Amino acid sequence: MPFPWGPSLMRRMYRSWSGPIRKTAPPLLGSLTRYLMLSTQRRISDFNSFVVRTNTCGELRSSHLGQEVTLCGWVQYRRQSLFLILRDFHGLIQVVIPQDESAASVKKLLCEAPIESVVQVTGTVISRPPGQQNPKMPTGEIEIEVKTAELLNSCKKLPFEIKDFMKKTEALRMKYRYLDLRSSQMQYNLRLRSQMVMKMREYLCNLHGFVDIETPTLFKKTPGGAKEFVVPSREPGKFYSLPQSPQQFKQLLMVGGFDRYFQVARCYRDEGSKPERQPEFTQVDIEMSFVDQAGIQKLIEGLLQYSWPKDKNPLTVPFPSMTYTEALDLYGTDKPDTRFGMKKYLKSKDFEVIKKFAVNHFNQEVSPLFLKTSGSGKSPFTKLLKEEEKTALISLMGAQEEDVLLLTAGEHKKACSVLGKLRLECADLLEARGVVLRDPTVFHFLWVVEFPLFLPKEEDPTELESAHHPFTAPHPSDIHLLYTEPEKVRSQHYDLVLNGSEIGGGSIRIHNAEQQQYVLETVLKEDVKLLSHLLQALDFGAPPHGGIALGLDRLVCLVTGVPSIRDVIAFPKSFRGHDLMSNAPDYVSPEDIEPYHIQVRRPEVTDRKDVKSVICETESSQQLVLPSLAKTENPLEKLALGQTPELLERRKSSKYPDNQ
Amino acid sequence: MPFPWGPSLMRRMYRSWSGPIRKTAPPLLGSLTRYLMLSTQRRISDFNSFVVRTNTCGELRSSHLGQEVTLCGWVQYRRQSLFLILRDFHGLIQVVIPQDESAASVKKLLCEAPIESVVQVTGTVISRPPGQQNPKMPTGEIEIEVKTAELLNSCKKLPFEIKDFMKKTEALRMKYRYLDLRSSQMQYNLRLRSQMVMKMREYLCNLHGFVDIETPTLFKKTPGGAKEFVVPSREPGKFYSLPQSPQQFKQLLMVGGFDRYFQVARCYRDEGSKPERQPEFTQVDIEMSFVDQAGIQKLIEGLLQYSWPKDKNPLTVPFPSMTYTEALDLYGTDKPDTRFGMKKYLKSKDFEVIKKFAVNHFNQEVSPLFLKTSGSGKSPFTKLLKEEEKTALISLMGAQEEDVLLLTAGEHKKACSVLGKLRLECADLLEARGVVLRDPTVFHFLWVVEFPLFLPKEEDPTELESAHHPFTAPHPSDIHLLYTEPEKVRSQHYDLVLNGSEIGGGSIRIHNAEQQQYVLETVLKEDVKLLSHLLQALDFGAPPHGGIALGLDRLVCLVTGVPSIRDVIAFPKSFRGHDLMSNAPDYVSPEDIEPYHIQVRRPEVTDRKDVKSVICETESSQQLVLPSLAKTENPLEKLALGQTPELLERRKSSKYPDNQ
Repeated sequence: MPFPWGPSLMRRMYRSWSGPIRKTAPPLLGSLTRYLMLSTQRRISDFNSFVVRTNTCGELRSSHLGQEVTLCGWVQYRRQSLFLILRDFHGLIQVVIPQDESAASVKKLLCEAPIESVVQVTGTVISRPPGQQNPKMPTGEIEIEVKTAELLNSCKKLPFEIKDFMKKTEALRMKYRYLDLRSSQMQYNLRLRSQMVMKMREYLCNLHGFVDIETPTLFKKTPGGAKEFVVPSREPGKFYSLPQSPQQFKQLLMVGGFDRYFQVARCYRDEGSKPERQPEFTQVDIEMSFVDQAGIQKLIEGLLQYSWPKDKNPLTVPFPSMTYTEALDLYGTDKPDTRFGMKKYLKSKDFEVIKKFAVNHFNQEVSPLFLKTSGSGKSPFTKLLKEEEKTALISLMGAQEEDVLLLTAGEHKKACSVLGKLRLECADLLEARGVVLRDPTVFHFLWVVEFPLFLPKEEDPTELESAHHPFTAPHPSDIHLLYTEPEKVRSQHYDLVLNGSEIGGGSIRIHNAEQQQYVLETVLKEDVKLLSHLLQALDFGAPPHGGIALGLDRLVCLVTGVPSIRDVIAFPKSFRGHDLMSNAPDYVSPEDIEPYHIQVRRPEVTDRKDVKSVICETESSQQLVLPSLAKTENPLEKLALGQTPELLERRKSSKYPDNQ
Repeated sequence: MPFPWGPSLMRRMYRSWSGPIRKTAPPLLGSLTRYLMLSTQRRISDFNSFVVRTNTCGELRSSHLGQEVTLCGWVQYRRQSLFLILRDFHGLIQVVIPQDESAASVKKLLCEAPIESVVQVTGTVISRPPGQQNPKMPTGEIEIEVKTAELLNSCKKLPFEIKDFMKKTEALRMKYRYLDLRSSQMQYNLRLRSQMVMKMREYLCNLHGFVDIETPTLFKKTPGGAKEFVVPSREPGKFYSLPQSPQQFKQLLMVGGFDRYFQVARCYRDEGSKPERQPEFTQVDIEMSFVDQAGIQKLIEGLLQYSWPKDKNPLTVPFPSMTYTEALDLYGTDKPDTRFGMKKYLKSKDFEVIKKFAVNHFNQEVSPLFLKTSGSGKSPFTKLLKEEEKTALISLMGAQEEDVLLLTAGEHKKACSVLGKLRLECADLLEARGVVLRDPTVFHFLWVVEFPLFLPKEEDPTELESAHHPFTAPHPSDIHLLYTEPEKVRSQHYDLVLNGSEIGGGSIRIHNAEQQQYVLETVLKEDVKLLSHLLQALDFGAPPHGGIALGLDRLVCLVTGVPSIRDVIAFPKSFRGHDLMSNAPDYVSPEDIEPYHIQVRRPEVTDRKDVKSVICETESSQQLVLPSLAKTENPLEKLALGQTPELLERRKSSKYPDNQ
């Protein structure tokens, strides 16, 4: 009887926890002092050049005492009619509201300016009186004795208070994104992102001679490339496509002798509505000639080390590496979170949850094996195991008293996946009890290598498809198998995983035209005509080359410790692809699309019958709205005409499973 | 009788030439040595990290004598069977082909590798024998004594020789763009572009605290914003739009407290087929809060000075400035080329050309006035002028013996425009004779300011439209006129002109919601609902702000001195918006557009009758192809089905004037 339940995974889950028990770390809510760390981590930028202010609100200290300064900022709050707290991106400063008769107009202005109005003040930096210093405030030793003040713009009544904004629903935050951006967390996120990207550019461009090259986003459909937005052209029936990555162009740049290319590239993917996906996203796109896998890995390790924020613990390189097979065996996934093994704080009711989870999500039975003081194990499974098998298992797992093993049986990959998911489920259960398993301030990078080059197609397992993309080179040791047993070929693809999320992936590419044609035509049965330009390019002196792309949104999301990539994007779309602020996408006039030789295809009558309810996207949590359909003859026509633009057709669950 | 012929323009044309006569500067064909200037203008980049080579071909010098090196490059050419010249982006190096028996395999490989094959060699840097040094070659004192060699990729017969590539037709260059990119000129252009942008980022981000923020490209249609590509969404009838600039987002970022924003932003504009326009282009997009016009101008002067290539003469700041009215009066255009005045090398037959040009292009008569030694002027005009008027004119123009004045009469702006165009026409005529008027190595920047805020609509001059865009603030001195005589209001818009090309434009924006609403609703009669999010944002504490956008493609084109922006873009589209390499845009399957609720609208029968000929875009110069339409029942159906994808429907000239 085989043991297909991933014993190594179990051992890992079981053994490698050794940290102290801590409460889950508090979410990284931005503090104004962190801005200072950001802005002083490099040579000092001049934030006051070219503008009317002499200083930022947040930068003033006792060292500025006696200086006359001009500040511009937003009214954060007032303390009686005595003090006004002014805010800019850099921090807060206390302005003393003058009380004497001669400054009546300044007093009036400062007392009456509504919260979040924009104010300019000129005055002198003075010490706060003894006992009135605020040690929690970076500017807490000083205040501004104001001479003149100007109301630059008055603020109307806000839909909410800025400081509490993070507690608002996401839909409200998105509708008033420009207000949300004033929060210290969003200021921190986007400024950190800008600085990390700038450091990456310095590393690539200045230190290592990479060339920043922009590639087109109006391209053509990639063979097999589903999920590409189309852009109608002025020629009937012809469309551009918004590419999912600059893959073809970066390879053509290598053929063109641009040796070391990078681009912070805007990419597009239309996945309908999926949580944590954006229709447009950004990747740090890199390609090099004359390089091998180790070279790319070293480059990326250096890149991340160089661009890593100074307010985080520095990174240690090289990053650990494991093969795809090891990752699946040990962690049940190709993107293991290596911050934790597993720990024994599960209660018996937890095992019911876990077993139910496995059945509901994977239709897979799982059995826990409890190790007792006696050294024997108790499990429904034990009936099925001979005593020596049980002993062998316990010994194999290195299991000790009070340990629990989770066992399952089945097809290898599926069984491993179930155990991998259960490992994360267990982590959720334990963290709900306050055990810190996945410390967000700890960063575990991991290379996963030696992926299979091809996978059986889901719809027809006798056919193969690329595990990643058709340009990936086979592993040098497996090239002979390409022509005999392609399903056994490992690739030169590598993934970079951070804390259980894939944040990058790349490969050494095929640079031989014949091999590329064989893969496309014979193995993948693709129409090579669509890629004739690339095949031809490989024939005209293409150098060996390889590259990688890092998912910038995800990376910054993990670095800043925020819950969603929407928190590191200035103007993200909702999970349905809407801009809730401007209401994009929107209806257009027939004249707007006339030059493109397209017309809107109204849903068929047969479709209309399916419309039982519509969903109103006013909140990130969906509200089911059941409009009185009887009152309108044709609700979809109403939708299409924009009379009820906030209403969305509810799709069939089969097509849009993530909406459910 | 008024003198509406722009006397100041004439005076300028006439007076300000003072340079020596030179032959037109040779076109800036790339020389390999220029790469060195590029790469040493900053701290040395390591071009050899992470890869198998130890050095680039172009960097080796006598100082490397005796070193064992590994080089990777392309076979440039062979001299007999004795030397192989290897090339990479950095330059050329001579490899000695070993002649002794023991190295027979290396000899065979190096002798047989086709031109443009990719080769890796390892060997020792040695001195060339006395008398064999090549002083014209940066690596001309040395050569490589090769030990091992490897053929990394063989090259098939090329469609042309790389070194002559610049002489090929543009269509051939575009079809094989990856080969074109190997030319020294294209390597120079794109590397220079990358370095200029990097320096701009250092200036903005590191020196002045700007935040690089990415804004969405999937947006909604801008009110009045024609020329926007549409992207169908998965909701019937709803479309995204690809914006022409991040204008709304950058202003919303200011409202969001991001004080100093920049982005190297991809922008989109569908102008059908226009020469020197690309459907996607790049602008350096900047916005600041608490800034005035002078602040933005100073910022940009510093930015260009800092990022200016070290192999060009350094820039002098501040740049000169002139008002829109002055520019029109003096130069007959709002983007004057101030590199030249005008000079008197015109021959009598030239005046016939000039007069014909004015009539043909502007339906405007122009008269030359020749000044004779006698001090009198000879002109068909002189009949119409009284003697004292003639004397006054000559004195006004400061005209001297042998000078020629070009005179015209008519509506002021039109007359000025004609004279402005004629000035350029005269410059063409003179340069055709070898007089250098517009030295491409000289860079004349100019600010043009105080544009009108509104212009009469061409189709209905009683209505006004924005001269630039509706968010531009009125000039402070003219605010009172906004509500009484809006057509007289000057704006706070500024253009940056370089050598007669507009390379940037920006403005201080309206930050007051009421004023913005008045402009949109009352002056421009726009539907404010579409901009309700922006108007609301201005009410919630919008700071005073302004910005600018530089056209990066045009700027780099002028800096590198190449004839077209296509020479500074890695993969440009043809003037019809085609990628001639990959054949984008292309036909898609009905399944590809099915999720977007659109269908292709075939041309109407009435349209079909117009199809008399089709144009085949195989060359940048158009070839008229007259297909035998009689043989096919429905030629457009054929087009739409992709059977003859290279054939394009020829549009009516009225709609696409630039195709003619």
